[in-house]
Amino acid sequence: MASNTFGNLLKLTTFGESHGAAIGGVIDGCPAGLELDLEAVQAELNRRRPGQSAIVTARKEPDEVQFLSGVFEGKTTGTSIGFVIQNTNQKSKDYTHNVDVFRPSHADYTYNKKYGVRDHRGGGRTSARETANWVVAGAVAKQLISQIKINAFTSSVGEITINKPYQDLDFSLIESNAIRCPEQDVAEDMIQHIKEIKKQGDTIGGTITCVIQNVPVGLGEPIFNKLHAELGKAMLSINAVKGFEYGSGFCGTKMKGSEHNDQFNQDGSTKTNLSGGIQGGVSNGMDIYFRVAFKPVATLIQKQDTIDSEGNVVEMQGRGRHDPCVVPRAVPIVEAMAALVLVDFYLLDKTTKI
Amino acid sequence: MASNTFGNLLKLTTFGESHGAAIGGVIDGCPAGLELDLEAVQAELNRRRPGQSAIVTARKEPDEVQFLSGVFEGKTTGTSIGFVIQNTNQKSKDYTHNVDVFRPSHADYTYNKKYGVRDHRGGGRTSARETANWVVAGAVAKQLISQIKINAFTSSVGEITINKPYQDLDFSLIESNAIRCPEQDVAEDMIQHIKEIKKQGDTIGGTITCVIQNVPVGLGEPIFNKLHAELGKAMLSINAVKGFEYGSGFCGTKMKGSEHNDQFNQDGSTKTNLSGGIQGGVSNGMDIYFRVAFKPVATLIQKQDTIDSEGNVVEMQGRGRHDPCVVPRAVPIVEAMAALVLVDFYLLDKTTKI
Amino acid sequence: MASNTFGNLLKLTTFGESHGAAIGGVIDGCPAGLELDLEAVQAELNRRRPGQSAIVTARKEPDEVQFLSGVFEGKTTGTSIGFVIQNTNQKSKDYTHNVDVFRPSHADYTYNKKYGVRDHRGGGRTSARETANWVVAGAVAKQLISQIKINAFTSSVGEITINKPYQDLDFSLIESNAIRCPEQDVAEDMIQHIKEIKKQGDTIGGTITCVIQNVPVGLGEPIFNKLHAELGKAMLSINAVKGFEYGSGFCGTKMKGSEHNDQFNQDGSTKTNLSGGIQGGVSNGMDIYFRVAFKPVATLIQKQDTIDSEGNVVEMQGRGRHDPCVVPRAVPIVEAMAALVLVDFYLLDKTTKI
Amino acid sequence: MASNTFGNLLKLTTFGESHGAAIGGVIDGCPAGLELDLEAVQAELNRRRPGQSAIVTARKEPDEVQFLSGVFEGKTTGTSIGFVIQNTNQKSKDYTHNVDVFRPSHADYTYNKKYGVRDHRGGGRTSARETANWVVAGAVAKQLISQIKINAFTSSVGEITINKPYQDLDFSLIESNAIRCPEQDVAEDMIQHIKEIKKQGDTIGGTITCVIQNVPVGLGEPIFNKLHAELGKAMLSINAVKGFEYGSGFCGTKMKGSEHNDQFNQDGSTKTNLSGGIQGGVSNGMDIYFRVAFKPVATLIQKQDTIDSEGNVVEMQGRGRHDPCVVPRAVPIVEAMAALVLVDFYLLDKTTKI
Repeated sequence: MASNTFGNLLKLTTFGESHGAAIGGVIDGCPAGLELDLEAVQAELNRRRPGQSAIVTARKEPDEVQFLSGVFEGKTTGTSIGFVIQNTNQKSKDYTHNVDVFRPSHADYTYNKKYGVRDHRGGGRTSARETANWVVAGAVAKQLISQIKINAFTSSVGEITINKPYQDLDFSLIESNAIRCPEQDVAEDMIQHIKEIKKQGDTIGGTITCVIQNVPVGLGEPIFNKLHAELGKAMLSINAVKGFEYGSGFCGTKMKGSEHNDQFNQDGSTKTNLSGGIQGGVSNGMDIYFRVAFKPVATLIQKQDTIDSEGNVVEMQGRGRHDPCVVPRAVPIVEAMAALVLVDFYLLDKTTKI
Repeated sequence: MASNTFGNLLKLTTFGESHGAAIGGVIDGCPAGLELDLEAVQAELNRRRPGQSAIVTARKEPDEVQFLSGVFEGKTTGTSIGFVIQNTNQKSKDYTHNVDVFRPSHADYTYNKKYGVRDHRGGGRTSARETANWVVAGAVAKQLISQIKINAFTSSVGEITINKPYQDLDFSLIESNAIRCPEQDVAEDMIQHIKEIKKQGDTIGGTITCVIQNVPVGLGEPIFNKLHAELGKAMLSINAVKGFEYGSGFCGTKMKGSEHNDQFNQDGSTKTNLSGGIQGGVSNGMDIYFRVAFKPVATLIQKQDTIDSEGNVVEMQGRGRHDPCVVPRAVPIVEAMAALVLVDFYLLDKTTKI
Repeated sequence: MASNTFGNLLKLTTFGESHGAAIGGVIDGCPAGLELDLEAVQAELNRRRPGQSAIVTARKEPDEVQFLSGVFEGKTTGTSIGFVIQNTNQKSKDYTHNVDVFRPSHADYTYNKKYGVRDHRGGGRTSARETANWVVAGAVAKQLISQIKINAFTSSVGEITINKPYQDLDFSLIESNAIRCPEQDVAEDMIQHIKEIKKQGDTIGGTITCVIQNVPVGLGEPIFNKLHAELGKAMLSINAVKGFEYGSGFCGTKMKGSEHNDQFNQDGSTKTNLSGGIQGGVSNGMDIYFRVAFKPVATLIQKQDTIDSEGNVVEMQGRGRHDPCVVPRAVPIVEAMAALVLVDFYLLDKTTKI
Repeated sequence: MASNTFGNLLKLTTFGESHGAAIGGVIDGCPAGLELDLEAVQAELNRRRPGQSAIVTARKEPDEVQFLSGVFEGKTTGTSIGFVIQNTNQKSKDYTHNVDVFRPSHADYTYNKKYGVRDHRGGGRTSARETANWVVAGAVAKQLISQIKINAFTSSVGEITINKPYQDLDFSLIESNAIRCPEQDVAEDMIQHIKEIKKQGDTIGGTITCVIQNVPVGLGEPIFNKLHAELGKAMLSINAVKGFEYGSGFCGTKMKGSEHNDQFNQDGSTKTNLSGGIQGGVSNGMDIYFRVAFKPVATLIQKQDTIDSEGNVVEMQGRGRHDPCVVPRAVPIVEAMAALVLVDFYLLDKTTKI
């Protein structure tokens, strides 16, 4: 089915394989009259770009976005916004050894079984390169709801975990280190750990926490478009994500109601916020916060046994340039997807009352 | 926006307030020719029904579903299936004290702010009574994909957690106790704990694990309708859910790639299954398993301070009949939503290849 | 596929067979805060009801709508509105002769081939009884956009055609005669003609013209949700419709551009209105008008040869109570569907600009 | 709203302004395994291309489509197909006189009012240049359902009308003349008439008839996705279309049921086909045929008075290169949109029965 579209009122539809001519998409439903800051869009792409630090893949892709329509004399016109990002650094021969081999814990096997055919080069459509498209759309979305502040950051790498509650963090430090963790000494540990893991040809998982502030009351749509359910779906769409929790999350399952309930202040705010800023699927004006679990990258620079499409056992070894840990580059992706969810509900909410 | 619809090819659209005349829905897109077992549908409803044991709410609702269309001489006809469940036991006067009061950690406040008006009786549209509709549709979905086995069970209540991996559990024991936990001694502890919590007028959270077996390879649709993302959204749509993880989940974030990768057997199955049966959003034929986090019920039989719609502080005390823990009644809801997700992808997959 | 839903932001999802227990639907996306005039809804249903005059079917269906949700203390709450209309006068035995027979120019054959099974009683899901659901939703839609005036009327029956341009008609006369034609002497001829046709056991086609006035500029969404394209689809969804034209329509194909162009007045209105109030799929503030073609009813009270499901030739004769001409009862249906289209664009337009 | 998408299972999403960098789109939901004939796609584009004959606009656009994804080693992979068509011949200065002027019977005024901003160059997004995108997608769709034969042709230009019923036409002659009318002497008259109209700086309307043969029984989805309703919407989406009729169409409104009913043969085919190959919204295996009304092009090479955005009366004269009659270039567009409708139902029908 047509499943390359995200959103309801603001819709992103994407295309592109890792090693095809280009990736890109269509942003449809963007309101007219937005003065689009193209540099801000590119800046978000640069946060996701390969080759930006010693702890991410060494691939060099400029990832320059070109807008083809929907923007006229600097303003959105209300028509659909087409964009492309050329693939300039497709070392397809890095991947010729994959033609007929199913990499463990990748989607090679499932795509082959489902479609009977696949573009094996660099994962083809399953590559996280696709998420560059999401960052473009998310950057536009951020500008549409610039009053809402969305900050994601790395909250753990392997066993190394941020110590402070998010309220005590200085989000302006997120971009000050390669791992995008605003607790500086923890960041150092994380970076050091990733370097060691990388030396082993291995990879490591981690978590990203996202905090959304200054959210108007009333975003989210019951019954089947609850704000947290759409956020969850958005996050689970990101490559390598294995879990999502918001507010008290899994910890909340161990609590009693008398501990968990958030008591009201007289202005409608709450004294605590175990709810995570959402009640009944609708934002209540408190901070929204959630945590996203990323598994370790499946491509190792180690020898592994696997099978080919005939079922023969073959030995393989990753030879491409790969990330030892996805979380630093995934931070802008998390923010982008959160922005896309929020802008949709922001637009929808305009139709709620007569 | 119209947000009361779930699914793409098999669509469930629902309506109904806790204390209105009836709840119900329309199941659209059900293939023709299914011999619908109406008793099996009712049996699923009975698993969700209030009053079924000492550890759930004492409300007595028969929850009898009546099909109004789409089934002729016992078979589905391919036309839309309308159904209703009458609300027979609406003690609205139990709720008159709520008219103007916002219950802590309920959706009263957010709905009032969003819509400017709400049916306050028993939570109105935000009541989990709505999930009876989902169980009806899920029971139809289960019959459409009867080869796939879906088993959910209570895996924790508060701090009390099931010990065995799911592979060592006997799913036929799930319905043998009131908490729906197939590890009998753990079930006893859970039930005992809930009884104590209830005596305190308090409530407690818990988790449900769901295992889906005998899944064909190839279900799920990249990029934005990944199987696990839709499962996650479905689960996060259930009242009181705060988190979702599948396969290795949050634990997987602490692992190295060399530990986490699932090596292939020659037949395409894998030696381990940290992936949770899904690669790239598409089922790989291994068991799918995931865990859902439920917060403690917000309605306490204790005095709490809260505010009314004018911002005045008022004292309130739950007087309705409420569940001390939602998980036993949520087990069939988890299964129903999983079935709805799966049947959609099952139908979609028929259009994948020429 | 799930195809029983109409609309984008305000969605109507319907169910029901002609001779099942009930028909009904869910209106989803209705903004909160509308004081719903239930009598006005029933009044629209009464305009569509069988048995209302000598020139329509003699069936007696009260067609009383019951709202089950979404309305609280007289106001819409923003939640989905469920409704049912009981089927009280199902003379199913009138239809037992149809069990295995395909009526000419009905959908019996196509449904049987498509689904392999069908509810043969009175056409089942293909019966125009379904349109009662549309009239309910359309009546709600009319109340949401009460400033827009929608008037449909019978503009021809067979060869008998209204003479005056719509600007010279008094719409308050539409309901003054059984055929719903505001040109009184023409109405008399039409009624007389239908009575003669009915005496012959035959049926006759006709057209309905619809005029929409006081439309705000800007309704309609390019590229694939043009206002006239959605109106056309809506009208072509009505049973027995064979054609749709708006503005100059098929006559416009014979004109030169210099004759057809509508010159502007200084206030943005146009001197002529061959465009029919829509440019580029978007309303321009002038009257919208269109014409809908209805074929003659296929059920005759005459003997016809046809085939059964085995391909045997059998003789059949309509014995139910049928309309000799659908147009008088279709007038409120045309208005209802137009209202549903307009309200959707009215809501969508709120999201057009930042 | 996001309204630049057509289709349900096979979805086309488009972007692009007449004088922007490029137009293009995403074809999503195309089944895997189709050996895509790229030359056949380009050949369809060439049928729509400007500059192809003396009776169409003299603009020279190569209209070369470039596929960016979704096709690997000649085969569709089941992933989304991105494509672009560069705009190479954008004489924007031809249009500088339009900056602030609303052309009569164009969408300048409605877009300006709706969006507050527009790309005025050559109509921007409202230009029929957009339909090149549709032809690309339609050409892919045709290959997916190559067993179904879709033939459109010019059936009238102004008052000059084809004489023969379509059954007596030789469709292989359609491409043999510039007007795409398979009745050769009528084609000559049409071409001559257009040349005269063009000499006057004027334009003329016309109709296109489309015949779809070899259609399987069962395509189309009740209630709100009827085959003819979707065809109607598709045709009404084409620029300049004012009407749609299928089967007996508006003529059928003058007939009696006894004349109009199509009697069955024993094999399920019908002796006549006034129904136009569709019953109850579902194909019955007979030929589908419909007629589409095109108004005369609004851009004249004559002086016209109009207004500017301040409401001042100004004199304007078309100076671009324009079509005196759209129908010859619209023939492949009609076929493309018909193919998109059919392929959607073809895919949907795979999910109809268990």
